[in-house]
Parts: sequence; C-alpha cells; structure tokens
Amino acid sequence: MEIKIVRDVLEANDQLAESIRKRLNRAGVRMFNIMSSPGSGKTTLLEKLIPILRGRGLRIGVIEGDITTTRDAERIQPLDIPVAQINTEPFGGDCHLGAEVIWPALDQLGIEQLDLVLIENVGNLVCPAEFDTGAHANLVILSVTEGEDKPLKYPLMFRVCQLAVIHKTDLLPYLDVDPERIETHIRQIRPEMTVLRASSKSGSGLTAIADWLIAFKGND
Amino acid sequence: MEIKIVRDVLEANDQLAESIRKRLNRAGVRMFNIMSSPGSGKTTLLEKLIPILRGRGLRIGVIEGDITTTRDAERIQPLDIPVAQINTEPFGGDCHLGAEVIWPALDQLGIEQLDLVLIENVGNLVCPAEFDTGAHANLVILSVTEGEDKPLKYPLMFRVCQLAVIHKTDLLPYLDVDPERIETHIRQIRPEMTVLRASSKSGSGLTAIADWLIAFKGND
Repeated sequence: MEIKIVRDVLEANDQLAESIRKRLNRAGVRMFNIMSSPGSGKTTLLEKLIPILRGRGLRIGVIEGDITTTRDAERIQPLDIPVAQINTEPFGGDCHLGAEVIWPALDQLGIEQLDLVLIENVGNLVCPAEFDTGAHANLVILSVTEGEDKPLKYPLMFRVCQLAVIHKTDLLPYLDVDPERIETHIRQIRPEMTVLRASSKSGSGLTAIADWLIAFKGND
Repeated sequence: MEIKIVRDVLEANDQLAESIRKRLNRAGVRMFNIMSSPGSGKTTLLEKLIPILRGRGLRIGVIEGDITTTRDAERIQPLDIPVAQINTEPFGGDCHLGAEVIWPALDQLGIEQLDLVLIENVGNLVCPAEFDTGAHANLVILSVTEGEDKPLKYPLMFRVCQLAVIHKTDLLPYLDVDPERIETHIRQIRPEMTVLRASSKSGSGLTAIADWLIAFKGND
C-alpha cells in the first residue's frame, strides 16, 4: 500500500518533468540539474563557472534548492543573473527538488530571456536522484574529500547522471584518495559517463565543464 | 492526504523506536546513532574509536546502514566485533534507517553480550534526522571540507543531535574554513550542543569522543 503511493508520486513527477522539458524546448532553453552531497562545492563551482559561460554569450538563470535559508542564492546574486530560491521546508522539508517546484521557479526566472538554466539541487546523494526535474541532463559533483567509494554506495545517483565532476582536486596532495579509483568506480556503475576533474579554487578543469555544457545536445 | 500518510509512517516509527529503547534498557545496553553527509569520515572514525572504547572494557556492536554494498561493514569486521549490515535497497532504496530495520539488526548482533551499539546511518543530512532509531543519543559528524554553513542549511539534523563532531581537522590548513564559525552556526541551531573537534587521521580529539559516549546518561 505504502509503496504504491510513492510510485504514484514518482509517476506524477515524471509527467510534470516531461511537460517542463517541452516548455524549455519551445523556449530554446537548456536546463541542467546539479546534484551532490552537502559540501561538495556546488555553489562555489557555479560562482566560477557562470562567468565563463556568460563569456561565451549565454544568458543564464539559476534555481537554488535548499531546505531552508537563501545563503546559496545570495552567493549567486552578485553575478547579476536571475536566481530563484526554492526552500523545501514549507513542503515538509523535502530532501529533493520535485518537478512541481521547478515549474513555478521557471516562471520566476523568466525563461524567455534565457539560454541556460542551472539547478543546484538539495545536497543529498539519495533522494534527488529519484526525481526527474525536467532538466535535459544531470550532473553529479563528487568532492575528493568524500573518498573513493561513493559511486558504489550511491549507485542510482551515478546511474541517472551524464556528467560526473571530481571536485576539489587541489586537496588531493593532502588526502589518501586516488582519483583514478574514483573514476573506475564511476564507470563500474555507468560505463558511458563523462568524468571531468576540477578545482574551483585553482580554476583547473572549469573550461572543460563549460565546453561540455555548451556541447550537450541529448534528446529533446 | 499525502502528508497524513507520511505522518502515520513517522508515528509508527516513533512507537517502535520507544520499544527499542526499552529493550536496550532492559539489556543494559546504550545505543548511539551516528549521522552525517556522505564522505564525512564516519567509518574511519569508527575504525579508530572502537579500539579506544574496547580498551575501556566495553563490548561493542555496530549496525552499518547503506543503500547498497557491505563496504563499511567489511572495514569494521577486522576489529572482530559483531557487525550487522542493513542495506535499504530491498526496502526501496530508503535514504535513512527506520526503527523497523534496527529491531532485527539488534537480534543479529546479540545485544545480551554487548554494552554499546553504534549505528552508522545512511550518509545523508536530511532524512535520517526525521526517523528515531531507538538510540539513546544522536551524533552528527561534520567534515571541515563541507564548509561552515551546513548547520544553518540542515537545521533539523543539528536539532536532533546531542553531540556534533567537527571532523578531518587535519585538513584545516588547506581550507578557507574557520571551525569557530562552524561552532557558532551549530549553536545558533542548538545552543546546548556538545561540540568536539577531531581528526581520525592524526588521532586528535578521539579520546574526548570516547569519554563523551561513556559519560552519556540521558533519559532512559
């Protein structure tokens, strides 16, 4: 009984996510959903990536998802681009962004004026993977400080993503972590995954991420 | 309608958690529930902490929670103590350990022969905070690599815990992170929280955690 209800929620979400993708396609907008553990550096990555993407002539909007606070949105605001903050607390402290909160956030952003929407999902390697946001592709950010085994322990997250970013590589000299092994574990779960390494602190690898986002075509 | 169902699930969980605490009290066993983001170093902390606790004459059992894999349990096994691995995947990939999986895990451990049970919950700062496991106290582990703002962004997790461990302090020289500010943010959410700093790599702070666990009385 209980499982049936969850399935209905997921089915309803998937239908709305499809409508979101159609809406984005009509407007000529690409949307990417960025997921990770808490503290993997998603917001810092956005702070560094957005100026690069803007330099390529793209008009960008950001949807920030958090249970509570507008801290991440406030960090994006100085970049002077449209930001919509979703707090899932009024919805019961949801651990993910569902399509039902993305739809009104797109209204807030005004997608007619945009080329690209980046979603920063709630920091969580479990639940966000289960809910299609309507994005064209999913990204997972994995900080090297999280160790080598996360792809094996959170396989669904890696199964639903098209790009994995191994982040905070500037910290590798101080850790007993081998990025090769992280990459091997990612490919055990999803052999066709694009894996990029980056450090938002040093700037290394950021243009490769921008290139990937711009080149991404996927299925409309 | 949907919210009502979730509430019923939480109520049923809370009742079973109370039964677990009574069962533990009858057996003279203390149980602690350890929660955190993925990759905060929970398993490494257990690897270092358990020998210290055993040196104080405590008989320890561990419950390992993961969506899939037995990797963490395999790391605890060489310590030669009872370990029960819960994989939440058969239950639908649950993002937390509910009381209904803790009860049979206690049977597997054989609590009559134990003084202390340590639960390593699923790596997640959201859902595990909502589900009482029947433990006598909750611990949250926060790696310094996760930044300073997590207590503000995941307040429920910090509200339900009695001890916060600021972990991986050996990495502080390489980060723009001030542990004082982490502590300030923790106390904004829960002023009475005990906050300890530790590095499982250097060993610093581990005996203070052991002392806290041994001294913990709480309400039976």
